Amino acid sequence: MASIFSKIIAGEIPCHKVAESSNYFAFLDIRPVSKGHTLVVPKNEVDYVFDLDNHTYLGLMEFAKKVAKAMDQVLKPIRVGMTVEGLEVPHAHVHLIPMYAEGGPFRLGRSIELKSDEMRHIAEHIAKHLHQ
Amino acid sequence: MASIFSKIIAGEIPCHKVAESSNYFAFLDIRPVSKGHTLVVPKNEVDYVFDLDNHTYLGLMEFAKKVAKAMDQVLKPIRVGMTVEGLEVPHAHVHLIPMYAEGGPFRLGRSIELKSDEMRHIAEHIAKHLHQ
Repeated sequence: MASIFSKIIAGEIPCHKVAESSNYFAFLDIRPVSKGHTLVVPKNEVDYVFDLDNHTYLGLMEFAKKVAKAMDQVLKPIRVGMTVEGLEVPHAHVHLIPMYAEGGPFRLGRSIELKSDEMRHIAEHIAKHLHQ
Repeated sequence: MASIFSKIIAGEIPCHKVAESSNYFAFLDIRPVSKGHTLVVPKNEVDYVFDLDNHTYLGLMEFAKKVAKAMDQVLKPIRVGMTVEGLEVPHAHVHLIPMYAEGGPFRLGRSIELKSDEMRHIAEHIAKHLHQ
């Protein structure tokens, strides 16, 4: 059965898309830890990130870096953190989490509320910057 | 001034070394979130991971994957999580954190107690596996 991320990539489940290439896809996490929290996934559905073949793994990391740099420009956080845990959805995904305040480390599972309109605006803004 | 990680790499501060290549260095985090928690750093001292040049950044991620695979073999966690926050030490570092139980996501800053002997044993065990 296709993972929820594969369904998002296929357009069967709506998302706020940030970026797409032939092998990778980035979209806003529907339960953001902070404003602009983005997920970057390989289109190839592999559960564990370290089971990806080297080429796909390094391409994923390179794609994540590009998205993070655009997030830095658009969202102006202190920096963008990156984390991969992957226990919830069996499809490797990199969390890119803008950090706006020193001190507390971010923590997955503790989300903030963002309106759909705001999510759309953020996604469009990052996407636009990526294409410049 | 050299970062604490540069001093560790130079051998000025002791550590439980896990792996070393010409450009990268891995050692156990002295405040482990879980047993085997390892830090992977570029020898080149750059603060923000996404400011690393692409070659160094991708080399770091490739090196981290190798270490993570050895950790999987030796420590037998559910999987190894990866996170980069980087607000504390101004020298880019990838946390590799073995996850042993489903449910709670790991969280930096909440460490466990491990005796120095146990740390040494873990580091040697991972290092040995890397060289096989």
